[in-house]
Amino acid sequence: MSERVGRVREVTSLANPLVKDIKALALKKFRDQQNAFMAEGLKLVIDALDLGWSIRTLVFAKSALGNAAVEKVAARTVAAGGTVLEVSEKVLSAITRRDNPQMVVGVFAQRLQPLKSIRPAGDDVWIGLDRVRDPGNLGTVIRTADAVGAKGVILIGETTDPFSLETVRATMGSIFAVPVARATAEAFLEWRKGFPGLVAGTHLKGAVDYRTVKFEGRPTLLLMGNEQQGLPDELAKSCDRLLRIPQAGRADSLNLAVATGVMLFEIRRSALTLEPGGME
Amino acid sequence: MSERVGRVREVTSLANPLVKDIKALALKKFRDQQNAFMAEGLKLVIDALDLGWSIRTLVFAKSALGNAAVEKVAARTVAAGGTVLEVSEKVLSAITRRDNPQMVVGVFAQRLQPLKSIRPAGDDVWIGLDRVRDPGNLGTVIRTADAVGAKGVILIGETTDPFSLETVRATMGSIFAVPVARATAEAFLEWRKGFPGLVAGTHLKGAVDYRTVKFEGRPTLLLMGNEQQGLPDELAKSCDRLLRIPQAGRADSLNLAVATGVMLFEIRRSALTLEPGGME
Repeated sequence: MSERVGRVREVTSLANPLVKDIKALALKKFRDQQNAFMAEGLKLVIDALDLGWSIRTLVFAKSALGNAAVEKVAARTVAAGGTVLEVSEKVLSAITRRDNPQMVVGVFAQRLQPLKSIRPAGDDVWIGLDRVRDPGNLGTVIRTADAVGAKGVILIGETTDPFSLETVRATMGSIFAVPVARATAEAFLEWRKGFPGLVAGTHLKGAVDYRTVKFEGRPTLLLMGNEQQGLPDELAKSCDRLLRIPQAGRADSLNLAVATGVMLFEIRRSALTLEPGGME
Repeated sequence: MSERVGRVREVTSLANPLVKDIKALALKKFRDQQNAFMAEGLKLVIDALDLGWSIRTLVFAKSALGNAAVEKVAARTVAAGGTVLEVSEKVLSAITRRDNPQMVVGVFAQRLQPLKSIRPAGDDVWIGLDRVRDPGNLGTVIRTADAVGAKGVILIGETTDPFSLETVRATMGSIFAVPVARATAEAFLEWRKGFPGLVAGTHLKGAVDYRTVKFEGRPTLLLMGNEQQGLPDELAKSCDRLLRIPQAGRADSLNLAVATGVMLFEIRRSALTLEPGGME
């Protein structure tokens, strides 16, 4: 057994205060109090550390003992001043609320990008989400932002928590790669005044086919309304263009994450190409 | 009180056998036994009736009594030989497993399209989903299929149930508008031999940019792998083309429903246009 493992605390009781604190992260109230959140899976935790996120606690299953990658992550956690817990599968299940939990869970400090520090340039793409409600939708949008190389996501108004377990899961690790900012509608509208490019809203009343706009050569801010109502008037008014995705069926029949994905791939249409030498 | 309401049974007990049968529809086993499923919401139930779906039971909250639209649906249910139940909110919550249930729930007979009856022609678009796992993804794909005017969805191999409450919810009513077929991989491959158009798979090893293919003028079958593994070899081999969506970030970073949406909007790119006279 390596030296590192000697610095690991072994916990099998759900009553352990460290475990209780981590379990509490299932609730927004305690995530906010601790300014922390949970991410599951060894690969995700490694990615997070590589991207400079601050780890507070690494939790791993007894069955992961001796796994070289897990021991390396444990050593990095200790070096960063974090705590390492070796727990029973029962404890991991309780923490993640899953029957078949991942072997490794990391607790990280939350990190949001201050709105004022966002200064778009070049072909930067930002996504503004108005009062998004569904954690799966938010996570999927963050994941898609990563896939298209967007610069980040701005959450406007009361939204679902980007650091909930469900949202983090849906991002598939992109929560660590995509900057997320939060703003009231007022703060957003103030910031928007200085936006040096195109502010494009997706709107059912949009008169402009989303494929007819030239997005290249300037920053784009894509504004999406929420699942129930679309963009409210004051946000719609702040757009340079209101775009619409033509549909064959009933109006308003796209899921928010799908509509955002379709828009993002259009905005980045000329920027995204297959690398030469792809497999034949 | 109208005559119709006189034919309604009032139920407040969770022990009522009719209520028990409906509650059991939360489990696939009982959905299969009863060959039935549940859909929530007045508008959805009306759409389903308009589209010719066979209603077995209409359940509505006491608070909906006197609502003309609900009474009309109740009358249609009775005329179709169905049962109408007026229940307490407690019963509705238990049936739908929701704290704030919709006022109206319909129980319908399941309906799948036999694979052999699918004969694509013209510009028809079909979607084949290999062993899709997540109910939300399946529901969202069915919803997107509706939005782009695809002809239907073929579920290949062991998939999540299209008639689960979660899937039906995610379709937002499109479960009633989009034909769904089910097939083993073998049956699908046999049927595919007669497909009179392009079979296009989305594949991480695909060498062809999805935007370089001409889809118009023939039927298209879009084949999508599942959330974990992408297309298995035998299905990939059956494709005329293996396409790839260029991405900026890590490979394989798109959610299945988003990737399907992006592909579908590309396939239907020339078919979908804003109707003239859209609002300015």
